[in-house]
Amino acid sequence: MSQFDSRENQLVIAGHSIDQVAAIAGQTPFYVYDRAVINQNVETLRHYFPKVSLHYAIKANPMPAVVHYLSNQVDGLDVASAKELHIALSTGISPGKVSFAGPGKSEQELSMAIAAGITINVESITELQRIRAIAESNDTTANVALRLNPDFELKSSGMKMGGGSQQFGIDVEQLEQVFDLLKHPKLQFMGLHIFTGSQNLNSGSIITAHNSIFALVDRLQQEYRFSLKHLNIGGGFGIPYFPGDQLLDLEPIADNLNHLITEHQKLLADCELILELGRYLVGNAGVYVCQITDKKTSRDQTYLICNGGLHHHLAASGNFGQVIRKNYPVAIANRMQQSETELVNIVGPLCTPLDILANKMELPKAEIGDWVAVFQSGAYGFTASPRDFLSHPHPIELLL
Amino acid sequence: MSQFDSRENQLVIAGHSIDQVAAIAGQTPFYVYDRAVINQNVETLRHYFPKVSLHYAIKANPMPAVVHYLSNQVDGLDVASAKELHIALSTGISPGKVSFAGPGKSEQELSMAIAAGITINVESITELQRIRAIAESNDTTANVALRLNPDFELKSSGMKMGGGSQQFGIDVEQLEQVFDLLKHPKLQFMGLHIFTGSQNLNSGSIITAHNSIFALVDRLQQEYRFSLKHLNIGGGFGIPYFPGDQLLDLEPIADNLNHLITEHQKLLADCELILELGRYLVGNAGVYVCQITDKKTSRDQTYLICNGGLHHHLAASGNFGQVIRKNYPVAIANRMQQSETELVNIVGPLCTPLDILANKMELPKAEIGDWVAVFQSGAYGFTASPRDFLSHPHPIELLL
Repeated sequence: MSQFDSRENQLVIAGHSIDQVAAIAGQTPFYVYDRAVINQNVETLRHYFPKVSLHYAIKANPMPAVVHYLSNQVDGLDVASAKELHIALSTGISPGKVSFAGPGKSEQELSMAIAAGITINVESITELQRIRAIAESNDTTANVALRLNPDFELKSSGMKMGGGSQQFGIDVEQLEQVFDLLKHPKLQFMGLHIFTGSQNLNSGSIITAHNSIFALVDRLQQEYRFSLKHLNIGGGFGIPYFPGDQLLDLEPIADNLNHLITEHQKLLADCELILELGRYLVGNAGVYVCQITDKKTSRDQTYLICNGGLHHHLAASGNFGQVIRKNYPVAIANRMQQSETELVNIVGPLCTPLDILANKMELPKAEIGDWVAVFQSGAYGFTASPRDFLSHPHPIELLL
Repeated sequence: MSQFDSRENQLVIAGHSIDQVAAIAGQTPFYVYDRAVINQNVETLRHYFPKVSLHYAIKANPMPAVVHYLSNQVDGLDVASAKELHIALSTGISPGKVSFAGPGKSEQELSMAIAAGITINVESITELQRIRAIAESNDTTANVALRLNPDFELKSSGMKMGGGSQQFGIDVEQLEQVFDLLKHPKLQFMGLHIFTGSQNLNSGSIITAHNSIFALVDRLQQEYRFSLKHLNIGGGFGIPYFPGDQLLDLEPIADNLNHLITEHQKLLADCELILELGRYLVGNAGVYVCQITDKKTSRDQTYLICNGGLHHHLAASGNFGQVIRKNYPVAIANRMQQSETELVNIVGPLCTPLDILANKMELPKAEIGDWVAVFQSGAYGFTASPRDFLSHPHPIELLL
């Protein structure tokens, strides 16, 4: 992967060769995240979107060190649970820069969010009613933004999360009742949140979504005459995982967004325009590393069996939302320049045929003790995996 | 589900109504496992297979209380990791009744297994070489059985784990070298382990597999003249999850196995014949219970949003090995006899459209605060789920 160098056959992460990283980790398997790559991602986004605020969606990678590092690089954090709220606040970030999204928030989560003074992205009318009741009974102002379920869909997303009927957000047709409920002295209306999908590699469809979002907000503004403190247009910027995937082209997205900003100066006066990104900020900065514990040939196939797999990295095993399993980018991290290759299957230690890290890949010929690196593993990796399945040891996480 | 009663609208588990169980749990979500149902499963198997030893594969549900309970009901335990080995030994079971299977066992796991005196199911030639070296250097006898990768496949399995090229077991073509390696004073040959697949609901294909296993063992015995202390023919007995699934018919399997036992009296003299079961012993004994925290209508669909979902029960969300998502059996646990129904989607609190517990199911009309019960959740439930995805609280586990 182009974000990482190699020297003398060794993969280099954050200036350390893979054997140094493994020595620092003290064990395999481990996840290692490279600060410099995260920083480069932020710089790229700042270059293309200088007028836009950047938020980090913690769910992509909630390792406290990663969140802390990013809290100094971006303009805000988005949390999806009470524990993520605690991680966010513990970075020292101002509560005004933190928002809380997610369907079915509990009474306790809502109370915590109100007490902390963060912004709650409201996902339903009943949730807004609950927030009102808590704010009233605690005599505290609740900062609320509305997560809208638009009446259009984002094309080419890895996952659609807006349009049609959805568990997310409030249908725009229901806004009259919502704005009535918002007229309450203990509710502070902050803005709108429109998130239409994730893992999109097609700039054209993101442009279409942005155009549709602004057209929708225009229309709603004319109808309800609100003024916005912020407008969160989500993210959905994808990263390449599989053969044939291309880097998302940010330039046309930026050009179009600049055009929209110019066109909507009045709407955006005193309004922070927010891009909320998770995967795009951290995904390519992470590498999952495990070690080959056995090598065997079974009939016509060669298997490299590792001490890590599906239980640490469900997405790389192909069991997390994928319909057809494809290989993540994988390398033998201590044989980066070796010319002799062979066709192998890389599997984990679990007693299930689902435990695959690479299916029929041509890779440098490897031996027991070698390191297997799975790239693009900085987002939705460890925490999105069934760590206790078969009760093997957990991986270490390192930010270097 | 027929293994659980209901009374006065309430689901009854282990004699307790759902509100009593929830009160004991002290929180939702929780998993509850019913001892009586586990016991009934053992009795059913004892009835059909009186001459066969029953082993429990801990990976299906490693909750220590469940393992402890089963250790008194069955004849042995199978472990798949160091932690499972510790759970097994902590029940007080004799090490002679414990076996350890799984590809890529670490040096440490092999040393632990040899020190404990349990049987290691060897998965490759290199693993056997490692076991020999450890046994020699520690001057301890290692009890080894061979996990074979047969030259036939089990039809109609949920997952195939034998036949063709495999990460599991040793190809039968490689046995000559293996039996040579086994000639060592510190290696005690225990027997054979042949596991061909899991979650099979077709008795005919299990019968075919059993016939093929005995034919294979006959053939190998003639070639290598071994004597077996045990023959583990795996399990693979499935349980019904989805609409249209039928209970596995054990009678023809038992009849056939009895026939095979009679036919192979000489082979089986002083040999324990083992059925190793996980899911079949515990799967139907477990219920996952979460609570409805929000209810909303989005366009033409109704959503019941719960405080549990994919992060606690990946398999029920349809994201664990399923190609096409189907609904697990689900009930509104405090409205079991209610006649008024509606078409609903039951979803969890995660910010992903993958977080589904029931897609378009006709269920008793429910309200916020009601309990959602997901049946058939006793195996590959909590530990097979990404518990920290979005950092929500973990479920409680209870054996009642």
